[in-house]
Amino acid sequence: MSKLTATMSMSLDGFIAGPNDSVEQGLGENGERLHEWLADLASFHEHHGGTGGEHNPDSDLLEAVFQQTGAVVMGRRLFDLAVDAWGPNPPFRVPVFVVTHRGREPLAREGGTTFYFVTDGIESALRQATAAAGDKNVAVGGGANIIQQYLRAGLLDEIQVELVPLLLGAGKRLFDQLGPEPIDLEITRVIPSRRVTHLLYRVVK
Amino acid sequence: MSKLTATMSMSLDGFIAGPNDSVEQGLGENGERLHEWLADLASFHEHHGGTGGEHNPDSDLLEAVFQQTGAVVMGRRLFDLAVDAWGPNPPFRVPVFVVTHRGREPLAREGGTTFYFVTDGIESALRQATAAAGDKNVAVGGGANIIQQYLRAGLLDEIQVELVPLLLGAGKRLFDQLGPEPIDLEITRVIPSRRVTHLLYRVVK
Repeated sequence: MSKLTATMSMSLDGFIAGPNDSVEQGLGENGERLHEWLADLASFHEHHGGTGGEHNPDSDLLEAVFQQTGAVVMGRRLFDLAVDAWGPNPPFRVPVFVVTHRGREPLAREGGTTFYFVTDGIESALRQATAAAGDKNVAVGGGANIIQQYLRAGLLDEIQVELVPLLLGAGKRLFDQLGPEPIDLEITRVIPSRRVTHLLYRVVK
Repeated sequence: MSKLTATMSMSLDGFIAGPNDSVEQGLGENGERLHEWLADLASFHEHHGGTGGEHNPDSDLLEAVFQQTGAVVMGRRLFDLAVDAWGPNPPFRVPVFVVTHRGREPLAREGGTTFYFVTDGIESALRQATAAAGDKNVAVGGGANIIQQYLRAGLLDEIQVELVPLLLGAGKRLFDQLGPEPIDLEITRVIPSRRVTHLLYRVVK
């Protein structure tokens, strides 16, 4: 059965981007620091059209996330910010459903990534992504806002936090605007590593 | 050499208390959920004047923190909120230095806890606590505000986060108002457990 998952690199103080994220600034001031642990990994290189990099448990974990993902949903702002940076061969290699208010034709890129634009909300995007994913998972690619929407709607099944040993101090928080009702999680797996702590949680519904 | 440490139970979304913490409400709405993992531990019972409880790795870790702590510094608001709840035999059993604007005579309680009231700032409190701690550590007992002050001042050496699998949604954040300059941490130790993840960091200076 297909699950809805989100995997994000987050600083210990809860940020997944620095202040002023933009097309020019990418992840915002100091935001790239959140992804430093990724940069040397073989699986990251491979999915970004390169070769080389390090094979280690971090890389294997990342590769497992890629392998288990059959489709992606994401917010329109993330798409706008990052589509140029992803280039002609984006790292997803599966159908990507972008939740937006403005419809447009699908955008097919190399390597199996096609962006579809969904104008009737997050539940519709999830239904379409689930159909496309087959027996694999649907990943919420971000940003924070759409992850929060899926959490509030009770639709997110798993959260994988890559907890980065850094206090960023400012930027965009992953867990914000969730409302005053607590959401219970269950620790599924904790994998310590030198540069990041891999935390996998099941959302208790 | 004595270190300045802070050990706090924090929800995955960064809260160490719920909304409206007060003398009556304790840790605020749903805030007690952050300490549920503690309630069954033998070391917690023992330091709160009871007996029984479970001996397990969580309990041993908590006991190690108690054993390594020679003095405590805390904020005035935490003292005001919790002094009655701590009762005649508070769990510290070491000198406690309360940073406040209003001086008063030391308050001696049973079991080795004496509260001293320091009116000339966090650095003075740290100096007095360090002298009292001998070769043991000084713990910042909280709340969030004074921990943030020691972090901003570059005086905190270690942070132990007891990461609770819970999205509290609202309340008081541990890491807030730190300013836009990132603070680097180094992962010292990660100990997974069923109900909490023990994360120990060194603050890189």
